[in-house]
Amino acid sequence: MTDREAVLFANEAFYLAFQTGDFDEMDRLWATKATVSCIHPGWHHLVGRDVVMESWEGILNHPESSNMQFRDPVAIQHDDFAMVICYEFLTNHAAVATNCFVREDNAWQMVHHQATVTPTTRPGPQASNTTQH
Amino acid sequence: MTDREAVLFANEAFYLAFQTGDFDEMDRLWATKATVSCIHPGWHHLVGRDVVMESWEGILNHPESSNMQFRDPVAIQHDDFAMVICYEFLTNHAAVATNCFVREDNAWQMVHHQATVTPTTRPGPQASNTTQH
Repeated sequence: MTDREAVLFANEAFYLAFQTGDFDEMDRLWATKATVSCIHPGWHHLVGRDVVMESWEGILNHPESSNMQFRDPVAIQHDDFAMVICYEFLTNHAAVATNCFVREDNAWQMVHHQATVTPTTRPGPQASNTTQH
Repeated sequence: MTDREAVLFANEAFYLAFQTGDFDEMDRLWATKATVSCIHPGWHHLVGRDVVMESWEGILNHPESSNMQFRDPVAIQHDDFAMVICYEFLTNHAAVATNCFVREDNAWQMVHHQATVTPTTRPGPQASNTTQH
């Protein structure tokens, strides 16, 4: 599996944990050594593993979380750091998200998630790009 | 100057270019080797230097750009990659932003910017944190 494939796989695992409400899996996906952070739509920023995982515990318990769908991931890799930009769809809104990963103990672990509500439901023509630095 | 100071300085230079509408300086701040990307509020994602810089050219020509203020930067460093989370204030809205940097030719260059409109105008109690991995 290439680094790009591994990063896209980690991104997919993140959304699977979201959909299934699997907090243990979500917890496993986030880095344990690097500082982690999160910006949920409409929230202030969160920095630190305790507050970030506490936020996910609340979100995964929300009944709407099982409707989360993601589409059109774009992976951008910078050596031991990678980002995936993708689109998130819930019942009543769409968002564009950046998910950041670092290589930690030979695995790609999440360090940052930011989602921005977007007014339209389909990404632009660049959405299928996959690029690597 | 420590890495953390250099990253915060680069972040400040980004907002100074924003406020002064200095496109040449904005162009200088973005990476030329690494793939760059941008998610402006309400936009789809942009990937690639040409489209990202084209977006900044339009934004910097907007008369409201000179009112941009940023506050409470939080720097998180992961070796040769760093993020700054901070709050942006324009006349009619506030946003929380993630600005990502990579070390390129011994300088911290921007590779990603995402801003999410936030409903409140003051960040939470964690806003003054500065952390380093």
